Amino acid sequence: MKRKQLIDHIKEKKSYLCVGLDTDITKIPRQLEPNADAIFEFNKQIIDATKNHCVSYKINTAFYEAQGLKGWEAMEKTLHYIPETHFTIADAKRGDIGNTSAQYAKTFFETLPFDAVTVAPYMGEDSIRPFLEYDNKFTIVLGLTSNKGANDFELQQSGDKLLYEKVLEKVSTWGTIDNLMFVVGATQAEEFVNIRKIIPQHFLLVPGVGAQGGSLKDISAYAMNDDIGLLVNVSRAIIFADDAKKAADEYHQEMAGYLK
Amino acid sequence: MKRKQLIDHIKEKKSYLCVGLDTDITKIPRQLEPNADAIFEFNKQIIDATKNHCVSYKINTAFYEAQGLKGWEAMEKTLHYIPETHFTIADAKRGDIGNTSAQYAKTFFETLPFDAVTVAPYMGEDSIRPFLEYDNKFTIVLGLTSNKGANDFELQQSGDKLLYEKVLEKVSTWGTIDNLMFVVGATQAEEFVNIRKIIPQHFLLVPGVGAQGGSLKDISAYAMNDDIGLLVNVSRAIIFADDAKKAADEYHQEMAGYLK
Repeated sequence: MKRKQLIDHIKEKKSYLCVGLDTDITKIPRQLEPNADAIFEFNKQIIDATKNHCVSYKINTAFYEAQGLKGWEAMEKTLHYIPETHFTIADAKRGDIGNTSAQYAKTFFETLPFDAVTVAPYMGEDSIRPFLEYDNKFTIVLGLTSNKGANDFELQQSGDKLLYEKVLEKVSTWGTIDNLMFVVGATQAEEFVNIRKIIPQHFLLVPGVGAQGGSLKDISAYAMNDDIGLLVNVSRAIIFADDAKKAADEYHQEMAGYLK
Repeated sequence: MKRKQLIDHIKEKKSYLCVGLDTDITKIPRQLEPNADAIFEFNKQIIDATKNHCVSYKINTAFYEAQGLKGWEAMEKTLHYIPETHFTIADAKRGDIGNTSAQYAKTFFETLPFDAVTVAPYMGEDSIRPFLEYDNKFTIVLGLTSNKGANDFELQQSGDKLLYEKVLEKVSTWGTIDNLMFVVGATQAEEFVNIRKIIPQHFLLVPGVGAQGGSLKDISAYAMNDDIGLLVNVSRAIIFADDAKKAADEYHQEMAGYLK
């Protein structure tokens, strides 16, 4: 999917919601459990319930890999079930030396034709470059994450900047706003003002809303740009809600308010 | 596998060679290609040819994932084919927020019962902690990698240290020498003196020998400790050699010389 299409979808639907399919097999309803395809069946119900309220789905690869072959198959099926109008993200946080990253790019852009994949920056440019070589695909690089561990390295001083600021600054020169996005965690809403000074135009994938406690209002106020520039991910607070459709609709309505 | 068993195997065999199964389907011999199980058949031949010369096998997950379900199946079969005497490493470079890292730990320690998995440090302690909670398993955290991109962040100044030095220093306090190792790239051999000051006792997984140009002699001189403390990985220079057994044997003989 191209950047322009994504922006158009967001504006038409008045939603920048990404639903995170962190499908934990131990948390899905009992009546699905005996089914060999339980993960896929659960995802199908979630997608049917939420697709009118979101513009994107993010598949957290860990929850599928943990189930082995069966899980990998559920990931394939889920990806193919997501409507073409929705921006699909493999939340895989990969990254390795060049020839290996090329294999990961192949995995998530060809074997599993996602629109985007999340990538870790630690190993530098040649670990990210192979992902950027695909047309109409997005590489979403970790900037500032929403977990406590962000304090260990990301928020540490690195010369005259914090490490995550250096990452945003340097990585943004390796690609364009048409093939690169960044993960920026929502629990640190005040950081968005600063982040938008470094990368005013890039789309941000923002996790941490819902179960992790980030405020949608603050994120939207601080991080939105002229092209919206935001995909806000909610996982557990939607997919494990008593009523996933209602939960997604509530986020949708709130977002529509901020898009006026 | 426990640290002591690994050390015993190294001393008995006089080898600290890890063979990297970066099995690129486009590079395996033509006569195997029509076989649906080509990757596994290739690995089987490599394992049979090299098992007397190495103490460890490292499976680079990217090359398997790129083949989708078939690849994942080949990874499973390969892991189960490796003799129990050999230390098995999933070179997966995972890392995410706690509940997701727990799923990755489950993937590579339970669903696929490897002895060790490589993990990226960027997201900090809670992204690594779930891996460390397993007994008799090793978490191998990226320190200094062997690629050019190491200059982008790992070798950048971070306060009074380089970032990778901070990573070694901080991460080493989160586990013990019995459940934690580090990846340290071999193309920067002079760095090992410094690295051994920070982490004198930990095992190091050293990639970058062979196709990437690192010197086995220098690594062994600078990085070996009283418990050996080294697993040197060679991938392409063995598995795609005309004679994999001969190539592995040459590394084995050279290592035996350094272990006298």
